[in-house]
Amino acid sequence: VLLARRETWDIARGPEATLAHVGAGFDDMLEEVGRQTPVWGATIGVPGPVDFASGEPVSPPIMPGWDGFDIRGWVTRRYDVPVWVDNDVNLMAMGELVHGTARGVPNALYVKAGTGIGAGIVAGGQIQRGATGSAGDIGHIAVTDDPTVICRCGQTGCLEAVAGGWALAQAARGGAEAGRSPWLAAALTDHGEILAHDIAQGARNGDPLCVEMIARAGRVVGESLATLVNILNPSVVTIGGTIADSGNLFLAAVRETVYRRCLPLATRDLSVVVSSLNHYEGIIGGASLALDRIFTPHTLERWVTRGSPLDIDRSLLYSA
Amino acid sequence: VLLARRETWDIARGPEATLAHVGAGFDDMLEEVGRQTPVWGATIGVPGPVDFASGEPVSPPIMPGWDGFDIRGWVTRRYDVPVWVDNDVNLMAMGELVHGTARGVPNALYVKAGTGIGAGIVAGGQIQRGATGSAGDIGHIAVTDDPTVICRCGQTGCLEAVAGGWALAQAARGGAEAGRSPWLAAALTDHGEILAHDIAQGARNGDPLCVEMIARAGRVVGESLATLVNILNPSVVTIGGTIADSGNLFLAAVRETVYRRCLPLATRDLSVVVSSLNHYEGIIGGASLALDRIFTPHTLERWVTRGSPLDIDRSLLYSA
Repeated sequence: VLLARRETWDIARGPEATLAHVGAGFDDMLEEVGRQTPVWGATIGVPGPVDFASGEPVSPPIMPGWDGFDIRGWVTRRYDVPVWVDNDVNLMAMGELVHGTARGVPNALYVKAGTGIGAGIVAGGQIQRGATGSAGDIGHIAVTDDPTVICRCGQTGCLEAVAGGWALAQAARGGAEAGRSPWLAAALTDHGEILAHDIAQGARNGDPLCVEMIARAGRVVGESLATLVNILNPSVVTIGGTIADSGNLFLAAVRETVYRRCLPLATRDLSVVVSSLNHYEGIIGGASLALDRIFTPHTLERWVTRGSPLDIDRSLLYSA
Repeated sequence: VLLARRETWDIARGPEATLAHVGAGFDDMLEEVGRQTPVWGATIGVPGPVDFASGEPVSPPIMPGWDGFDIRGWVTRRYDVPVWVDNDVNLMAMGELVHGTARGVPNALYVKAGTGIGAGIVAGGQIQRGATGSAGDIGHIAVTDDPTVICRCGQTGCLEAVAGGWALAQAARGGAEAGRSPWLAAALTDHGEILAHDIAQGARNGDPLCVEMIARAGRVVGESLATLVNILNPSVVTIGGTIADSGNLFLAAVRETVYRRCLPLATRDLSVVVSSLNHYEGIIGGASLALDRIFTPHTLERWVTRGSPLDIDRSLLYSA
């Protein structure tokens, strides 16, 4: 990875504003690494289901304005390179599959516990996206009948609304204001809001409210994960995202719940681990996806005869 | 299909007795179709997880004595043909994938609702067996905390113990003896026991208790299926097994629950249908599996040069 940049952005600002911002940031980064660095391809990960063949989001619950938007077309017009668009968690799973904890593992799961919650499924050695790109979308599965648990997707009782970073941050603000957490009160004073990151760091530093919140989130995520493990029988489950940064607390709660709730056979050879890629799994996965598609035997042959593997019909690169 | 035979057998009688019985039956059938019919291969489906590469059951919950038994070796010694062993529901899913309702569908589920309950997962066009062969084993996932719901696997609260044919038959006996079901009372008088088949037929004929039991089983199976659909995002769900024979009642209850409990995106293009293969899906799937492995380009090439595609190292045929 030559250069990486991380920013907080409200995806609900819509595709035009978001992609213009991403494009400007990418231009800056190209400038920084030197304009002589050629761009061979681009991969875009978004927090919602994507029709992988067309590169368009499909009714994404938390991305108003993005349904059917031609992300690939937008990026291609700007950089004239082949473009792949995928769900962000699928790219993280790909990163783990190619270079991380699930390297070469044919049956694996990646779970992102960050602002939102999602899973990437590796089965038979392949990322599985399902019929409409929503495979692994566990964030909006109902985990409670409590009608007061309102999700940002508009439904009630979603996993994300109980254990997602945005839901934890909402609850944490109340706790901080009620004087139940010195750590979170300090964060609120410091930057005027509480982020999932603050809660994870608070837990790591032993703040009682943060510890309680992260442990509970781990148990709730663990229960949903147990269902995935029972159904899919992976040999590695990798946990990533901001919430997983709480030291061993979140991992321990997830692991304990998964082993307790799963069929013995499904956990016999199961490892539950934290990502080793230090939040670069999505970037590495996106790059791996593009490399995989660009450097096939088929495209390499064209490269030899025509001078560039990209000098071919791009639909060949995009086919799923 | 040249010939098929169906028998009720207690798998708990162990591998030696069971395979001897199956072998004797198969010899009879060979006699019946004429000894000149060559046997090219054999596929054995069992109601439990199988390590597909070795062909051995892996800690199967309801198959005492079968753990690690060399089924392939037993059958090979008897018929000297290549042998594949798989979970029975995986073979049914394969049948639907090759010749049934899921023909050519890359993302599909098959659910067997018979004596037991299990699912076969097709993702990325392939049957997915998981790391230890237990992918799709939904029968022993806990669906209730009620400690009085005891499963034949030894655990409590399993899906099978609530909605499996054997559990329904147990409950039905009580209903028949209490005079709540003329249909089941007649079945009990007629053959001294109640089978899942009797309940399905009773429901088809409007017996009130049978209708109630099948509708409830459909709702419970539907809830577990909704989770599978949310996670895997298939485009076809096929239902088979004895319980599905109750006319439209079971299908309607499953379908209604799946559509109500799933994310809208996961059901947008989803069909929930009954198997069209009339209980032959497992036989057709088993044959397809063997044909797929025997007639690869690689083996056909050997056939041309050596006279038989089977005249090669069999481990090549078995590799997953």
